[in-house]
Amino acid sequence: MLAVHLSGQTVSIRHDYSEPIPTEKDIVVDVLRAGICETDLQLMRGYMGFSGVLGHEFVGIARYGKLMGQRVVGEINCSCWQCETCLMGLPTHCPNRSVIGILNRDGAFADSISVPVKNLHVVPDSLSDDEAVFVEPVAAAYQILRQQLVRPRTRVVVLGDGRLGNVCAQVLADFGCRVLVVGKHPQKLQVLSGFGIETVILSDATPNRSAEVVVDCTGSAAGLTSALQWVRPWGTVILKTTVAGEQTLALAPVVIDEVRVVGSRCGPFADAIAGLAAGRVKVKPLISARFPLEQAVDALEFTRTQPVLKVLLDPKSKTGPA
Amino acid sequence: MLAVHLSGQTVSIRHDYSEPIPTEKDIVVDVLRAGICETDLQLMRGYMGFSGVLGHEFVGIARYGKLMGQRVVGEINCSCWQCETCLMGLPTHCPNRSVIGILNRDGAFADSISVPVKNLHVVPDSLSDDEAVFVEPVAAAYQILRQQLVRPRTRVVVLGDGRLGNVCAQVLADFGCRVLVVGKHPQKLQVLSGFGIETVILSDATPNRSAEVVVDCTGSAAGLTSALQWVRPWGTVILKTTVAGEQTLALAPVVIDEVRVVGSRCGPFADAIAGLAAGRVKVKPLISARFPLEQAVDALEFTRTQPVLKVLLDPKSKTGPA
Repeated sequence: MLAVHLSGQTVSIRHDYSEPIPTEKDIVVDVLRAGICETDLQLMRGYMGFSGVLGHEFVGIARYGKLMGQRVVGEINCSCWQCETCLMGLPTHCPNRSVIGILNRDGAFADSISVPVKNLHVVPDSLSDDEAVFVEPVAAAYQILRQQLVRPRTRVVVLGDGRLGNVCAQVLADFGCRVLVVGKHPQKLQVLSGFGIETVILSDATPNRSAEVVVDCTGSAAGLTSALQWVRPWGTVILKTTVAGEQTLALAPVVIDEVRVVGSRCGPFADAIAGLAAGRVKVKPLISARFPLEQAVDALEFTRTQPVLKVLLDPKSKTGPA
Repeated sequence: MLAVHLSGQTVSIRHDYSEPIPTEKDIVVDVLRAGICETDLQLMRGYMGFSGVLGHEFVGIARYGKLMGQRVVGEINCSCWQCETCLMGLPTHCPNRSVIGILNRDGAFADSISVPVKNLHVVPDSLSDDEAVFVEPVAAAYQILRQQLVRPRTRVVVLGDGRLGNVCAQVLADFGCRVLVVGKHPQKLQVLSGFGIETVILSDATPNRSAEVVVDCTGSAAGLTSALQWVRPWGTVILKTTVAGEQTLALAPVVIDEVRVVGSRCGPFADAIAGLAAGRVKVKPLISARFPLEQAVDALEFTRTQPVLKVLLDPKSKTGPA
């Protein structure tokens, strides 16, 4: 089958990659659509030292079992469900886990993918394939609610107008937070304005240490330092983006201002599916381009270098980017 | 009067420093005893860019007003009590504040000090001068409880067996937490063992990412990186120590493990006085040495280079260190 393989920092298209083999726990899903995430670009820079098939945002059709023939999306953390961490209710932190397309497990930039049946969620008919690809990143945005880091009316500054910043802003605004998105790209901010969300261009913004909550979706090593200029004393900085390697920053402001810095990662798929199905989170305006799977190298480069929001990969399409 | 003055990174003893002048809000306190804190050593390395009289841990006798003749200790943040931050209940974060011996205000390594009357707390007779000097650092330990970062039975690892680590461990153990102190100094760990607190020497300890809460009292730029090796997913790292300049660390583990990193600074004096008076926090075994105030330069150097816990300064004493 066709697969997009990362080895070291080199991505290559493999035409003869071995088909995934179903097991008692894992079933094979034929991929309908996959999405490129900032994490894919970080992996290509050495983050996690991952080697294997890239891709963790996908929708596909289950090939076997009870779900056979149904459209499904899959949670990315493949947990053991037996260790202390799993049993305390934190399976996404299972120390024995593999992670689809990120850690010790092939991903979804392929014709097919093997996924634990426990990780699969059926996609309602009302959601298109294009929308269903967003379940994973939208779930990451809902994780902020699951972590109980905001309340309705909380003043939130979202730093970053990219893919993740966009869906985080939408989820928080829908929850009732007073959201301001700070970004660098007028076109991307316009998408948010179209959703009724307040925005400001970075060059016009003055951080004034008054936000109750700041969400760092910059994807930049300087994100936390920037967030600390926006957050108020006793406020919260939510770190959403993961960056390879080490960062250099002054930590004293965290202590002096008694700020809370909280990491936030994968989230609840059920909430994301419900939010998308109800139209509370809108993702179609975020689709910037579509590439056939075999042009994934171009698609990754396009995502890395162009001011795009979401770029999709389509294993079924044999045409050029649209 | 005698005063210990920091200018740039140079400390000097001034014999003719101007006496503080009382105002409507500030009264003069004659210092009976002062304590040397890790922050004093950091200030000498350029932290906060402070210039002025050092010292923020003290007990003294109020010279004027209603409190005249009484022994008092003083909160170090001198707030405006009028701004939004003060009015929302966070006066220690007042953006207009000065801080005794740390920011725009002379400190307590002097014969006398000027302190806002609102900052003063009367010391009960049952507390000796030596014990009362510890109210400020013990209050900083109680701040962890005020921030509601632990519960009884919470498993806490305290990193650092120094002054602050010691009192944090005592306050948390007294609150009912299951405390383990990791330190480098057998003698300092022995003081904690004497209080019935579990300890382990760093070289024998294996961080296993299982602590619910880790308190960084290392005073080291590497403290957070170390803490992230001890804390469990969804756990909390409490940053207690402030370090001058920038640190280099990998932030991805904060996101991946969804850890909460919380800064923690000055705390409630009333709780500290009550804890010391009730004997729930014991500080006499922490006193390593005493110097006359005029030997403060030697005392600071002694604190910086020797494996000491608390070093006290005594303006009334004219003899050598004891």
